[in-house]
Amino acid sequence: MGHRLGPNTYGKAEIRLLHVDRDGPRHEVRDLTVGVTLAGAFDDTYLTGDNSAVLPTDSQKNTVYAFARRHGIGAVEDFARRLARRFVTAQPETVAHARVTVVEHPWARTGGHSFAAPAGEGRTAEVTATLQADWTVAGLTGLLLLKTTGSEFRGFLRDAYTTLPETDDRILATEVEARWRYGAAPGDWDAAHGAAREALIGTFGSTHSRSLQQSLYAMGGAVLDAVDEVAEVRLRLPNRHHLLVDLGPFGLDNENVVFHPDDRPYGLITGTVSREGAPPPGLAWV
Amino acid sequence: MGHRLGPNTYGKAEIRLLHVDRDGPRHEVRDLTVGVTLAGAFDDTYLTGDNSAVLPTDSQKNTVYAFARRHGIGAVEDFARRLARRFVTAQPETVAHARVTVVEHPWARTGGHSFAAPAGEGRTAEVTATLQADWTVAGLTGLLLLKTTGSEFRGFLRDAYTTLPETDDRILATEVEARWRYGAAPGDWDAAHGAAREALIGTFGSTHSRSLQQSLYAMGGAVLDAVDEVAEVRLRLPNRHHLLVDLGPFGLDNENVVFHPDDRPYGLITGTVSREGAPPPGLAWV
Amino acid sequence: MGHRLGPNTYGKAEIRLLHVDRDGPRHEVRDLTVGVTLAGAFDDTYLTGDNSAVLPTDSQKNTVYAFARRHGIGAVEDFARRLARRFVTAQPETVAHARVTVVEHPWARTGGHSFAAPAGEGRTAEVTATLQADWTVAGLTGLLLLKTTGSEFRGFLRDAYTTLPETDDRILATEVEARWRYGAAPGDWDAAHGAAREALIGTFGSTHSRSLQQSLYAMGGAVLDAVDEVAEVRLRLPNRHHLLVDLGPFGLDNENVVFHPDDRPYGLITGTVSREGAPPPGLAWV
Amino acid sequence: MGHRLGPNTYGKAEIRLLHVDRDGPRHEVRDLTVGVTLAGAFDDTYLTGDNSAVLPTDSQKNTVYAFARRHGIGAVEDFARRLARRFVTAQPETVAHARVTVVEHPWARTGGHSFAAPAGEGRTAEVTATLQADWTVAGLTGLLLLKTTGSEFRGFLRDAYTTLPETDDRILATEVEARWRYGAAPGDWDAAHGAAREALIGTFGSTHSRSLQQSLYAMGGAVLDAVDEVAEVRLRLPNRHHLLVDLGPFGLDNENVVFHPDDRPYGLITGTVSREGAPPPGLAWV
Repeated sequence: MGHRLGPNTYGKAEIRLLHVDRDGPRHEVRDLTVGVTLAGAFDDTYLTGDNSAVLPTDSQKNTVYAFARRHGIGAVEDFARRLARRFVTAQPETVAHARVTVVEHPWARTGGHSFAAPAGEGRTAEVTATLQADWTVAGLTGLLLLKTTGSEFRGFLRDAYTTLPETDDRILATEVEARWRYGAAPGDWDAAHGAAREALIGTFGSTHSRSLQQSLYAMGGAVLDAVDEVAEVRLRLPNRHHLLVDLGPFGLDNENVVFHPDDRPYGLITGTVSREGAPPPGLAWV
Repeated sequence: MGHRLGPNTYGKAEIRLLHVDRDGPRHEVRDLTVGVTLAGAFDDTYLTGDNSAVLPTDSQKNTVYAFARRHGIGAVEDFARRLARRFVTAQPETVAHARVTVVEHPWARTGGHSFAAPAGEGRTAEVTATLQADWTVAGLTGLLLLKTTGSEFRGFLRDAYTTLPETDDRILATEVEARWRYGAAPGDWDAAHGAAREALIGTFGSTHSRSLQQSLYAMGGAVLDAVDEVAEVRLRLPNRHHLLVDLGPFGLDNENVVFHPDDRPYGLITGTVSREGAPPPGLAWV
Repeated sequence: MGHRLGPNTYGKAEIRLLHVDRDGPRHEVRDLTVGVTLAGAFDDTYLTGDNSAVLPTDSQKNTVYAFARRHGIGAVEDFARRLARRFVTAQPETVAHARVTVVEHPWARTGGHSFAAPAGEGRTAEVTATLQADWTVAGLTGLLLLKTTGSEFRGFLRDAYTTLPETDDRILATEVEARWRYGAAPGDWDAAHGAAREALIGTFGSTHSRSLQQSLYAMGGAVLDAVDEVAEVRLRLPNRHHLLVDLGPFGLDNENVVFHPDDRPYGLITGTVSREGAPPPGLAWV
Repeated sequence: MGHRLGPNTYGKAEIRLLHVDRDGPRHEVRDLTVGVTLAGAFDDTYLTGDNSAVLPTDSQKNTVYAFARRHGIGAVEDFARRLARRFVTAQPETVAHARVTVVEHPWARTGGHSFAAPAGEGRTAEVTATLQADWTVAGLTGLLLLKTTGSEFRGFLRDAYTTLPETDDRILATEVEARWRYGAAPGDWDAAHGAAREALIGTFGSTHSRSLQQSLYAMGGAVLDAVDEVAEVRLRLPNRHHLLVDLGPFGLDNENVVFHPDDRPYGLITGTVSREGAPPPGLAWV
């Protein structure tokens, strides 16, 4: 039997870029990691090594740098869309869709022209474009959240392998990976991102949680409530277990005071929350 | 407008396990990292915090350890399948499908009961099971390959942002992430895995490469040729660029001798190669 | 010829600990990674396997947890000292000196009992104790700093391998690893740490830098000026190079606007700045 | 009080280099990460920003690449020494000593000109040179070792915080970080390294271990016995704990069969073994 080439993509990953805006009274810096992925009529290079339709990934990198110089950055969603559209319009007969992914690493000003990086947290944007349309997904990664009370885990199914005791008060901690799809462009991408982020943080804290799943659903719903243009929220929440240390052998009680934050294994909860009547996702998640 | 819960999963990630078989004349060790993912009728815990259908991820972990003791490990594909089927049959009305993912970390014997770990490379297995059927995907990760000649990149598309020169002799290097789907169970999982791995390594080396895409397609096809039961191969090949260092300022030539292996960015090539007439994937990749 | 056992230590590394103070109106959390190192008369276990003088590292771990419960945390310098003194006084005939190292991972309050982790930055403390005395070193790690102007690199030595052009305006960026030794205990460990940190950040920004070495010396001196009790400052500053991207081939200028932050290699600058007349270091750095 | 500049160094870290030897019938590849550190009369750049004695770290990088082209690699100890001597002789009035550190990443041949990387293990060499002399330290890093029996831990000291049970049969596992100092140059650096490495692996396996400390001392001594030119061995051995899983709740015994390899915390053992009458270390470890 013969072989058949199936779905395939190519592109450039992890293009590091620092942009300095020197036009105002104080410099502004933007620190991005950019990825480009193209899909389309690229079968020839796989099948025969004919590269005549292949734009080198080096040229994709050059385009990212040149666009940063020519157009600046602006909202990362705009920057990603500008690039995604470039790649699809530059080769309309070859590129079926282009995806540009941006992770922004924030810097905080500490002086006129000096900055410190306060966080491992990153703001993300992914734009997928065809000739006819484009879809925008925003998100964040590496946001650590923890609450010291207001979390229980009870009434769960027990089988022959269940030893976990029920608890009505535990530490709940996670590292949020969130992505939300816009059904329409908000008036202000940055404000929309800020409102979504605040909704995730606030709802994690204010929800009395009977399971991390319940917190997930509440957090996703809060993003939908906070930003009208968001159509759908996808969340990935590892359950970073905090184990109560047994201090009884040393004559000490331990009423939820001293914990061992365990590395592995960890529970992993994923879920999607979408707005009823939201427009279809198109290629947003492809 | 209301909210709607969409696709969701839960499970335990990165369960570390060492198994020692003490029955033979010499101990055998198996070192695994195991993940469990369940999908099905778990909406209640998201919507209301009702956990009555939720088997704790802690119990999933216990099951993994208990099964290792009760049944041993055997081929990782068998171990993954045994567990996946357990989770789906134990809660047939709730669990639509269970996926068990195994990464094996190899150890090489250095003495009667002593071992050294030779490699960052990992062997992988993923089994997805429903009540009616199951699907097996095997693979490997972290396999570094490099060739010093027999690789060119020419005749590519040039646009306004293209500065890359053509080359008829370059270093080609990658870190293989491969997964292949079995259409039927091979007689010997370990032998099949070994044959697939050898096909990847051998074909990378023997293919005169006009693009990494071409190498990818050849490597995928070689796995299909080497193992009859493989239906489909998915490959992810980062192009680890090796930049020729310019030694001209120091009065030295550099005819492909001294290179700078660059970290980032890197080209990223993905592709699927499937057997014509192969059975459909079912839930193998879901 | 015979063999001789030389310097040796043992201990427990990376003890993870979360402490929740529930006594006030709102919970307070402290998230630490603790290490213990003992040196002294432990030759027997190396030479013959006689463990009678060896307190298990498991017991060291238990002690850390029990002390957190019994005494709380307080300033990390105090917590480290309390533990270091415990290990040296509990085995006065065996332990010559004990070192306890603490890295604190900060959390920021987001609600009554909920928190977010804002930073990859860690606050560090190391206390080395003997029966007679102890020495305290504080510090920080993972503080990213960048300035967009006010940095030049000119007038350097050129040899046959020098191609670097001079520059009078470059990006200067680093990831600060700082440790400072106290000659005496400040009244408030937290305030002293805060003042030292601000001095590092402020001086990096305000110093017109002719070399990263010069910035290093100014930063070290600023810590000495800011905190009277600091006797000595040790700094390790990688020079995170930002390479100006050549956009000439695309008809674009690039007057210090678009940079490529390069991963490797990087310059690495270390240095010590001490106060004249400061007390000797004793075992602080051993 | 005034400030005083104390010990300081500068240099280039993590210079990545691939060298291809194309002279023989088959290509040979060498994959290195090189670091350069200089110490000496560099106070001016710290104190005033006067860089006239500062060879840019960029030039150091260029020198590494140029020397690879001009002289090839050979034994990594030779390569490191050649470079260290270059840096100290090129600026004899400024550089007090130069240290060059090399980590070699091994590749295994899989075909005429193709290779796979079998290991996370790295071979290391560090040479420190002054105008008058040089000192060579070789080593390895990332070597994972495990034994399934022949390891006990009993008779240890117990205090109020000790809960650890004694064991006469446990898993012993570690990740070896070894460095050994040569008192004289062996005839064949590669053969000496191989013999030292085999001694470490073999002795770990063959030693009936009453403590990891005892294994450490035996391993260090074995290197001294295996290579006459080695004067001193320094070992850092984390104790990678393998916790026996309690399967009693599931009606299963577990006689040292199923273990949980725990990530953190871990015991950490260090020690030095030296040859009686060995020459003094000079600047080998500075």
